[in-house]
Amino acid sequence: MTGRIRICDALTAKEAGGELLVKGWARTVRAGKDVAFLAVNDGSCIANLQVVVEPDIVNYPEVSRLGTGSAVAVRGVLRESPAAGQRYELSATQIEIIGQADESYPLQKKRHSFEYLRTIAHLRPRTNTFGAVFRVRSSLAQAIHRFFAERGFLYVHTPIITANDCEGAGELFRVTTLNMAKPPLKAGEVDYSGDFFAQATGLTVSGQLEGELFAQAFSNIYTFGPTFRAENSNTARHAAEFWMIEPEMAFADLMADAALAEDFLKFLCRHVLDNCTEDMRFFNDQIDKGLLSRIEAVASSSFAVMEYTEAIDHLKKAAVPFTFPVEWGLDLQSEHERYITEQVVGGPVFLINYPKDIKAFYMRQNDDGRTVAAMDLLVPKVGEIIGGSQREERFDLLLERMGELGINEEGLWWYLDSRRWGSCPHAGFGLGFERLLMYLTGMENIRDVIPFPRTPRHAEF
Amino acid sequence: MTGRIRICDALTAKEAGGELLVKGWARTVRAGKDVAFLAVNDGSCIANLQVVVEPDIVNYPEVSRLGTGSAVAVRGVLRESPAAGQRYELSATQIEIIGQADESYPLQKKRHSFEYLRTIAHLRPRTNTFGAVFRVRSSLAQAIHRFFAERGFLYVHTPIITANDCEGAGELFRVTTLNMAKPPLKAGEVDYSGDFFAQATGLTVSGQLEGELFAQAFSNIYTFGPTFRAENSNTARHAAEFWMIEPEMAFADLMADAALAEDFLKFLCRHVLDNCTEDMRFFNDQIDKGLLSRIEAVASSSFAVMEYTEAIDHLKKAAVPFTFPVEWGLDLQSEHERYITEQVVGGPVFLINYPKDIKAFYMRQNDDGRTVAAMDLLVPKVGEIIGGSQREERFDLLLERMGELGINEEGLWWYLDSRRWGSCPHAGFGLGFERLLMYLTGMENIRDVIPFPRTPRHAEF
Repeated sequence: MTGRIRICDALTAKEAGGELLVKGWARTVRAGKDVAFLAVNDGSCIANLQVVVEPDIVNYPEVSRLGTGSAVAVRGVLRESPAAGQRYELSATQIEIIGQADESYPLQKKRHSFEYLRTIAHLRPRTNTFGAVFRVRSSLAQAIHRFFAERGFLYVHTPIITANDCEGAGELFRVTTLNMAKPPLKAGEVDYSGDFFAQATGLTVSGQLEGELFAQAFSNIYTFGPTFRAENSNTARHAAEFWMIEPEMAFADLMADAALAEDFLKFLCRHVLDNCTEDMRFFNDQIDKGLLSRIEAVASSSFAVMEYTEAIDHLKKAAVPFTFPVEWGLDLQSEHERYITEQVVGGPVFLINYPKDIKAFYMRQNDDGRTVAAMDLLVPKVGEIIGGSQREERFDLLLERMGELGINEEGLWWYLDSRRWGSCPHAGFGLGFERLLMYLTGMENIRDVIPFPRTPRHAEF
Repeated sequence: MTGRIRICDALTAKEAGGELLVKGWARTVRAGKDVAFLAVNDGSCIANLQVVVEPDIVNYPEVSRLGTGSAVAVRGVLRESPAAGQRYELSATQIEIIGQADESYPLQKKRHSFEYLRTIAHLRPRTNTFGAVFRVRSSLAQAIHRFFAERGFLYVHTPIITANDCEGAGELFRVTTLNMAKPPLKAGEVDYSGDFFAQATGLTVSGQLEGELFAQAFSNIYTFGPTFRAENSNTARHAAEFWMIEPEMAFADLMADAALAEDFLKFLCRHVLDNCTEDMRFFNDQIDKGLLSRIEAVASSSFAVMEYTEAIDHLKKAAVPFTFPVEWGLDLQSEHERYITEQVVGGPVFLINYPKDIKAFYMRQNDDGRTVAAMDLLVPKVGEIIGGSQREERFDLLLERMGELGINEEGLWWYLDSRRWGSCPHAGFGLGFERLLMYLTGMENIRDVIPFPRTPRHAEF
């Protein structure tokens, strides 16, 4: 008899007949005088292992009274199951009760709303839905590292605490060790000279700027870490803390950037289809009926490319009414993006060359004087899923643009330096990991794809 | 002619004679009338590709005046090199100057101190030492994910912003969106009800407690994310922001935990020896002469196990003087740990079963009433590198211990809940990623193994 094996391995054993030991939690217990059934789950897969217990087991009375959620260790023999929907069951020879759960256990057999389950985020991983969500999350995160490792991209940990604020001060969380009840003041303003970092600091909104510095030493790099927005928006798509993936490539232009984004997204679609098959089937059956065919379509499609200016023309000619105005120079809303990818293109599309006034200071200015080399990847049902750009590598143009936008060049001296010596064309993009997960699982609330979500007024667990 | 290839691939080509295109930065330029040499590096490996330029190239005058640090694209033919120390060189047929660097570029040929290079952390990745450090860092991080993925461990992103404080309030960074100049007060204390999360929050010091919750659903899990200490210590081993790896296994005891830690550390030692060979040789030659043999010894050793109580006996009998006192019940200092691993054991050793009063509330109480099932892995030259424990899974004992230590049980209701239903023995450990990197590279200052270190008064870049 060997040690414990995982239930996913037991359920995919080559043949029945083996003796084995599993450990896990009883998802259901059905007991009569003549036989008891325990559906045991250990988190290794969505399926439970059906354990069949005959009354000749010494502790049958205790086992038959076990509550849902109890932890058990079961030794037994793997048998072909007569029941539908499962190949094997485990005929128990010994059951050790490790940890009881009584009827106060919140996850009894009945269905619970996602809203309720958020209030018990410490227990929801023990349900089918959240077991599947967090297995896919983990598998996808590991696959992302593999994707970049195989292509020679260097993984860089950009800083979480930062004194920069590249995308707008209003959305920054402040980080401090000052006595907040009696902050030191100087002319009415907080004097940060005595703070831990001797200056005002906050939580990063993006690792891109630091990532660019590393791309200019290692050619191809990526970040994968937490980022933060102190945005007071209580929507299904916003969280204050989320994980982001940001690759950056030296000697790359906008089209090379788009090619990487296309490879990357297809790889991830293919990954979940091939490696998270059971969990994905669950999402397709229970959460979002069209999920598998939609992901399969993306994985096997060729992504289109369209100019922003052309997209505006399409939108102006559209026969459908939009809530938000359409005008060259305005940003696109989700309804516009979805119209383009779903109605005009009928598949994933990169919109490129946006008006410079609606994009960030670091994007490369095109020769037309009014657009920048930006790209947004739009996909059906969601709209934008990836945003990227070629970066402005020309020192003078970057400095000029920073001046126009009132960006303090002293705070970014090091970023400017990277254009001062050995500057080169480079490009990258950002993908919000939770948005990707929502897209690939069909889950509709970002709070339901993060282990312990942080949103306005919520930092429990 | 195909597209750009990486210099690491060019240098390991099967044979000379191929036409190829490389892009990178000139580390040195030596030019005469008859020939010029450019040592080009693209970050893919520590070695430069020697580019040989004959004067018949159209832009020879410009190329021969190129400054160190310039970005170039070189087409040429790979030839066997007559020079010592390199197998191939590239005979240039075309050189495109992409980005100039003049003599103001800080990384001229002379050596720079690590202290100075910290002040230009945005440029230091372009040096040999920091190129090697960050390649090893990336390779190791990717290997850590592979180690756990291959063993079926679920990767979980535990929260960064937290309302918990499991290891002492004094070391916590506060996170807030309140107006710090005029904080809302209530009876002289800050009133956090109007803060973003409607309560006091800070940056996490560990993902362990949340990791335990996930282990009780998925059996085996790990975290790998940033953690924070607002400790005002300016030592070579402390940073305010660092990355930590924390695996947790359900149905595991202290010895299973030690077995995982041993496998893990040996795997990582073997990984850098086998996969970062050139960078490791550089560290062995330039930074720490005994490095390779020390790591090889760990990778092929069998780790010992010793009771804390036995270690105290050894220390009391030691013929060497210690700076810090030795007494049962006191924590061990680095000098003691190194004596045990270097002099007594002569290799890696797990010290186990520490006095409960010097360890955290969540560690499992042993039957002797005075020790807990803790383990510290000690390795030669460093002392402790991994710390872990079996966790207290018994509700009553956990609650009692929290009471003894004055830990607020209301704040940890969810942690207690995990012992309320389906509780099971479980164990885990923590490994500071930067400490590991220092150990595996021989680098002596934690600031030199983090891309952009955060320490007291320093949050640049």
